[in-house]
Amino acid sequence: MKPLGPVPAGFAAVDGELALGGVKISEWLAEAGDTPIFLYSGDMIAKRIEALRTALPDRIELNYAVKANPWPPLLEFIEPLVDGFDIASAGEWLLLDEAGIAARRTSFAGPGKRDEELRTAIEAGVTLNCESAGEADRALAIGERLGRAPRLAIRVNPDFELRGSGMKMSGGAKVFGVDADKAAGLARRVVDAGVDWQGFHIFAGSQSLDADAISEAQRNTIDLARRLANEAGITLPKLNLGGGFGIPYFAGDEPLDLYAVGEKLHEIAAADVLPGTRLVLELGRYLVGQAGVYLTRVVDRKESQGETFLIIDGGLHHQLAASGNFGAVVKRNYPIAVAHRVDAEPEEVVNICGCLCTPLDRLATQAHLPRAEVGDPIAIFCAGAYGATASPMHFLGHGPAREMLV
Amino acid sequence: MKPLGPVPAGFAAVDGELALGGVKISEWLAEAGDTPIFLYSGDMIAKRIEALRTALPDRIELNYAVKANPWPPLLEFIEPLVDGFDIASAGEWLLLDEAGIAARRTSFAGPGKRDEELRTAIEAGVTLNCESAGEADRALAIGERLGRAPRLAIRVNPDFELRGSGMKMSGGAKVFGVDADKAAGLARRVVDAGVDWQGFHIFAGSQSLDADAISEAQRNTIDLARRLANEAGITLPKLNLGGGFGIPYFAGDEPLDLYAVGEKLHEIAAADVLPGTRLVLELGRYLVGQAGVYLTRVVDRKESQGETFLIIDGGLHHQLAASGNFGAVVKRNYPIAVAHRVDAEPEEVVNICGCLCTPLDRLATQAHLPRAEVGDPIAIFCAGAYGATASPMHFLGHGPAREMLV
Repeated sequence: MKPLGPVPAGFAAVDGELALGGVKISEWLAEAGDTPIFLYSGDMIAKRIEALRTALPDRIELNYAVKANPWPPLLEFIEPLVDGFDIASAGEWLLLDEAGIAARRTSFAGPGKRDEELRTAIEAGVTLNCESAGEADRALAIGERLGRAPRLAIRVNPDFELRGSGMKMSGGAKVFGVDADKAAGLARRVVDAGVDWQGFHIFAGSQSLDADAISEAQRNTIDLARRLANEAGITLPKLNLGGGFGIPYFAGDEPLDLYAVGEKLHEIAAADVLPGTRLVLELGRYLVGQAGVYLTRVVDRKESQGETFLIIDGGLHHQLAASGNFGAVVKRNYPIAVAHRVDAEPEEVVNICGCLCTPLDRLATQAHLPRAEVGDPIAIFCAGAYGATASPMHFLGHGPAREMLV
Repeated sequence: MKPLGPVPAGFAAVDGELALGGVKISEWLAEAGDTPIFLYSGDMIAKRIEALRTALPDRIELNYAVKANPWPPLLEFIEPLVDGFDIASAGEWLLLDEAGIAARRTSFAGPGKRDEELRTAIEAGVTLNCESAGEADRALAIGERLGRAPRLAIRVNPDFELRGSGMKMSGGAKVFGVDADKAAGLARRVVDAGVDWQGFHIFAGSQSLDADAISEAQRNTIDLARRLANEAGITLPKLNLGGGFGIPYFAGDEPLDLYAVGEKLHEIAAADVLPGTRLVLELGRYLVGQAGVYLTRVVDRKESQGETFLIIDGGLHHQLAASGNFGAVVKRNYPIAVAHRVDAEPEEVVNICGCLCTPLDRLATQAHLPRAEVGDPIAIFCAGAYGATASPMHFLGHGPAREMLV
């Protein structure tokens, strides 16, 4: 028997059935046209953002990292709730533009920006977080051709790391950003070249549940930014502190202590650090990850050599990360429930497999759950971020999942 | 420095540049509209199938496993060269149907067939490789409602495994097929129920480079099929022996000794084993994997803490497996080349990263290659199977890669 991850707060039971916003998921499914589907709770997203606003000093701006979930209705829902947006491609900019989101609220990071992407961003007035001297030079050349000063920030590869983060993005040789010891020189050069200077972007890591580690990285980020600004003799209109706020996926994961992170940021704000600089947090997974649930149904139930398998009508083509095949070193079970019997006692130990004809498509191993029959709904939680678009939806031809914002 | 995988035979250099079918890839790129793109060589696929026909006894039929690469022009190219097709979803059947491929040449395996998929297959006359008693019952019920006997085979979860295979699909509790000790009873039952009986499907594993192991699995498969047919008192119109023929991806991988596999199958054929039974091999990766190359260009070249990074205009959104994030336990380098200087001596050690803003998007680590500048083409080989459709193409909004059959 292997433990399941913790079901996020905000999901309740109505008549023993999983409910979202007080409405049973069977009703949502009837409205949406059945499984497989991602249901996103606008209310849970709004509450999460409200919790951040409460915990953090007013001075901290909140950006949404579009890569976590670029589904247009979700972008439109989030738009009035956040201060800005971070994108990772010109394709993501098109989505924002179509949702009526202004370029001046948008910044673009990513190590492989093509010339046409730089041109699109410069023409629109999107801030480019430059990842290298070479990219800065290409942006300057394109800006010159367009007769338009690029809005430009420099992404710095910091000389420290976010301890214990799920994904290290700094602290060593990295594809992201300009090494800290080269960043001041490049900043001076682009400011002298007449760009519309925006400041620094320093992203130390992601998916951390450790408030102390996040606070330490934020303090280090601010120290580094101050040092670089002094060294370059420039001011910083903006400092993007990155994100890194994690969510619990697995058994034993404890939610991030947001209050503790906020307290340290209040100390920084009280000390009037970097006056005149806008301080921005860039969060994706933390805003939407727990607000989404992936709903599927049992297609088959079978025994093999004494083990029970439930095969569902979804799989890794929609939720690759839940199969443990996207960045995970050890495969562990996400939070999962038999959705029409969420408060029933566990009765049996099952493996839950997706419908793809590959042994990789396993979504839970030896999970202790109430009994589920063919046709019963299975909920896989923590599906709001890095789900539908971070999965090989065309693999084996089963097609995409529906998405619905409730 | 970490070794690269072996470049597949069939790629040549013309004027020092990678060429396919005698034509330089710069010319193919000019025709196709540039990178990122998958180029597939029809000639290499045809030669691979010819080699199989030469090595294997006439009695062995060859099926193409569509999941490896379902791109329609490729299906149309392969159609006259193989005997049949194996699909894993009703979506894949639609692709075959549109390509004018007959249902009677097609069989459908997959552990999570939905009722509407069963109906589609039964109506069309596609053979269902049933994965469980429950699925067989659903197929029978749907066939009855339609007034049509399902064409039905039973997939068996064998009581042996393919030694050393990249992916074990048997030998223990598995989601695939009916356990060997239950298969005869189920076969008898569906035959008695009046299905259009097709036989057994026994797939022991995939991606094996060990001829002895494959021959042993084939012998075991035939023995098991004979035993089950005797036990059930039925004949076998067809026996799908599975596939499992691997291709070299990594340094040290040696190509499968096809001659050795063929020799053992000739012995089996000479012994007139299972007379009257069509023996089918189901191959996907082995037919198309090495015939595809993924072509990208360098977008940025940067140094970080003494390491050199090439960032390309493709990435794991097109070639997830090459990033080591799809089923690999250890990340190793695929075969990679600086495509306009394929016969130049290696000059530097580089990391090759995709354009996605995630540390997962690394396609080669410490690769020893000729120097490449911004704009230069980078070829990643072994991209014909499990590439474009087995990758999260929508992740980060960079869009799909082109595909071209040459």
